[in-house]
Amino acid sequence: MADTSYEISRTGVLLVDPYNDFLSEGGKIWPRLQEVAQRVGLLDHLRAVVTAARDAAIQVFIVPHRQWRPGDYDDWSHPNPTQRGIQERHSFAKGSWGGEWHPDLVSQDGDVVVKEHWAQSGFANTDLDLLLRQHGITHVIVIGVLANTCIESTGRYAMELGYHVTLVRDATAAFTAEMLYAAHELNGPTYAHAIVTTADLLAAIRSAR
Amino acid sequence: MADTSYEISRTGVLLVDPYNDFLSEGGKIWPRLQEVAQRVGLLDHLRAVVTAARDAAIQVFIVPHRQWRPGDYDDWSHPNPTQRGIQERHSFAKGSWGGEWHPDLVSQDGDVVVKEHWAQSGFANTDLDLLLRQHGITHVIVIGVLANTCIESTGRYAMELGYHVTLVRDATAAFTAEMLYAAHELNGPTYAHAIVTTADLLAAIRSAR
Amino acid sequence: MADTSYEISRTGVLLVDPYNDFLSEGGKIWPRLQEVAQRVGLLDHLRAVVTAARDAAIQVFIVPHRQWRPGDYDDWSHPNPTQRGIQERHSFAKGSWGGEWHPDLVSQDGDVVVKEHWAQSGFANTDLDLLLRQHGITHVIVIGVLANTCIESTGRYAMELGYHVTLVRDATAAFTAEMLYAAHELNGPTYAHAIVTTADLLAAIRSAR
Amino acid sequence: MADTSYEISRTGVLLVDPYNDFLSEGGKIWPRLQEVAQRVGLLDHLRAVVTAARDAAIQVFIVPHRQWRPGDYDDWSHPNPTQRGIQERHSFAKGSWGGEWHPDLVSQDGDVVVKEHWAQSGFANTDLDLLLRQHGITHVIVIGVLANTCIESTGRYAMELGYHVTLVRDATAAFTAEMLYAAHELNGPTYAHAIVTTADLLAAIRSAR
Repeated sequence: MADTSYEISRTGVLLVDPYNDFLSEGGKIWPRLQEVAQRVGLLDHLRAVVTAARDAAIQVFIVPHRQWRPGDYDDWSHPNPTQRGIQERHSFAKGSWGGEWHPDLVSQDGDVVVKEHWAQSGFANTDLDLLLRQHGITHVIVIGVLANTCIESTGRYAMELGYHVTLVRDATAAFTAEMLYAAHELNGPTYAHAIVTTADLLAAIRSAR
Repeated sequence: MADTSYEISRTGVLLVDPYNDFLSEGGKIWPRLQEVAQRVGLLDHLRAVVTAARDAAIQVFIVPHRQWRPGDYDDWSHPNPTQRGIQERHSFAKGSWGGEWHPDLVSQDGDVVVKEHWAQSGFANTDLDLLLRQHGITHVIVIGVLANTCIESTGRYAMELGYHVTLVRDATAAFTAEMLYAAHELNGPTYAHAIVTTADLLAAIRSAR
Repeated sequence: MADTSYEISRTGVLLVDPYNDFLSEGGKIWPRLQEVAQRVGLLDHLRAVVTAARDAAIQVFIVPHRQWRPGDYDDWSHPNPTQRGIQERHSFAKGSWGGEWHPDLVSQDGDVVVKEHWAQSGFANTDLDLLLRQHGITHVIVIGVLANTCIESTGRYAMELGYHVTLVRDATAAFTAEMLYAAHELNGPTYAHAIVTTADLLAAIRSAR
Repeated sequence: MADTSYEISRTGVLLVDPYNDFLSEGGKIWPRLQEVAQRVGLLDHLRAVVTAARDAAIQVFIVPHRQWRPGDYDDWSHPNPTQRGIQERHSFAKGSWGGEWHPDLVSQDGDVVVKEHWAQSGFANTDLDLLLRQHGITHVIVIGVLANTCIESTGRYAMELGYHVTLVRDATAAFTAEMLYAAHELNGPTYAHAIVTTADLLAAIRSAR
């Protein structure tokens, strides 16, 4: 059912928010997603997808959340609930270990690092769309965290902008199993062009032209 | 916890997709959402919110989905799954009864009718943002259908654009109870500034300045 | 210097505002641009470009200004100077002859008609970007009127969005010679990838792959 | 004719591209705009507007161009002519003196520093719009350089997004007198709500509520 025929020069992998605070033991948010992440094999699958993409010369885009800086959101009219949480927790604080890339998912030469997003969508208030276009990308594969927030908003925006959108069931995670279920079984099928497993995706990348 | 203090001149009600095909007995999609809609009292609540808004001089914006026209999506590179369904079903077909407003939710003099959206977000590829701004709106109350598709994408976009976003639990519906639950219990709390009942909202509108 | 090597399936002609009020004897605005239009041979060149594009299977997009409707701009916080002029003159009034396409530039089967723009850029508050993407377009050729307002803003936006932009010196016009000069000699060279004559463009279309 | 009645809490000054390379003796681009800049008194007027804004508690937003970094634009499908020039000249290079703020226009505590823009509009592919909204801004005063490129594109975008736009004749500059003339006499009057002198603006700021 899913259309997973990719053209190498037109496909991009969007790696969203690969911060230690999200993905590493000791990270501020890791405890909340650890259970789901370990069950689906999140880290193994993120490594596998990124490696396969680089090997196939599929462009990787790092799509990072705003690193918290002192004062962030303090003078905003109405930060959203997640942003108010970040004000308190200082998630992904600039200069902190939690705000660094997970060591296995550090950006490499040739990756494109996009501007930070302030909320959920990697497209909103950033240069992601421009950079995708100037690289000729029409198909995006969205991986990373969280499935029902940044991944889902990035995927919804990509679809509205005219991109072909692939979600990867086990290359993302969420705070609860039902949030992951909502992302892939309830909402994803309304807007995404393909929802696949990492195994499916690796096969598709191998046969990409 | 929710901030529901509204200033009349800065608040707008976004009434999304009030088509017969969605909301009326005999509509093409009504059978799929009827059960949830009737359980939450959707129609009564939509009528109540719109009436209260007009009485309070809160601006109402009608935010309509693209009316299907012959040829729609046929020459697109990759319509999304919902759009492919519309190609087959001809939902909200222009010139058809299903593509007319529900009789109790017809736009009135003084309402603003926004351009049609092609997918889920009332902001994407339309003039909704411009029209809200030129009316001085900073706070949006998003009602109508479907909770996890057009309402959610419109709400997520509104937040990214800097609006204060209110969702109304029983002035929307979805195909299944779990979709409604996902919209209001799992995803909404990550981006929306307030998630209220119609009763709460009517009280807030009465005390709006 | 200009890069005018076009790929047929990725190129679109944007025909901006081909209304009688702009382009026809008797139109409300025609007297203001008549002198420049006749000097550059505007109508002949618009006809030639559109015909050549259709013959070459290059997609034509009609990019229309908002047709004036009663009440337009009346309740806006701050319409711009051009919009205030339209409030008085009722330019391109819906239902009027001035709001119809020039008879030689009527949209044909196979053309894509974009949503109306409220101000200058054909991209702002419309679905132009989405429709270009879903047709695979990366290169736009922007023709029509006015050179320093709608054409220039559409071209500037196209560049910011990542498109390759071609302006055509004698397939546009302006109210004065110095406005045309500003568009093509002062501003165009800062953002447009190619600024050509109709003769150049017709040759490039003939050799497009 | 111009509407220059400002409300302090809703007004923002956008200071565009105040780099040494543009504004300081020894800067890479300064020689090209020096004549016009000195004739209009650019530096004095930029200092005066920024100081007056801060004194009046009007929010200042710094709107910077992309600092050139090695590799910039090299892998883009089609950089625009200005970007190709930057590839050669390394304008505003990150880490260089030319890429620092002019010493009199350094950002101060309380200023908002927006993400870098890649081309001309301070809104395109940045968070300027979001930050303006979260500060409640509806009216923007656009100053800095260059009048017919970044200032003009930022102003045109601001208008399309629904902002009230003020240009300041002598708090900007361009490479030639005719470019400045085009910005303020030919194009500005089509989209900007007010085009004033610094003296006018300072008076308006003093009487702002």
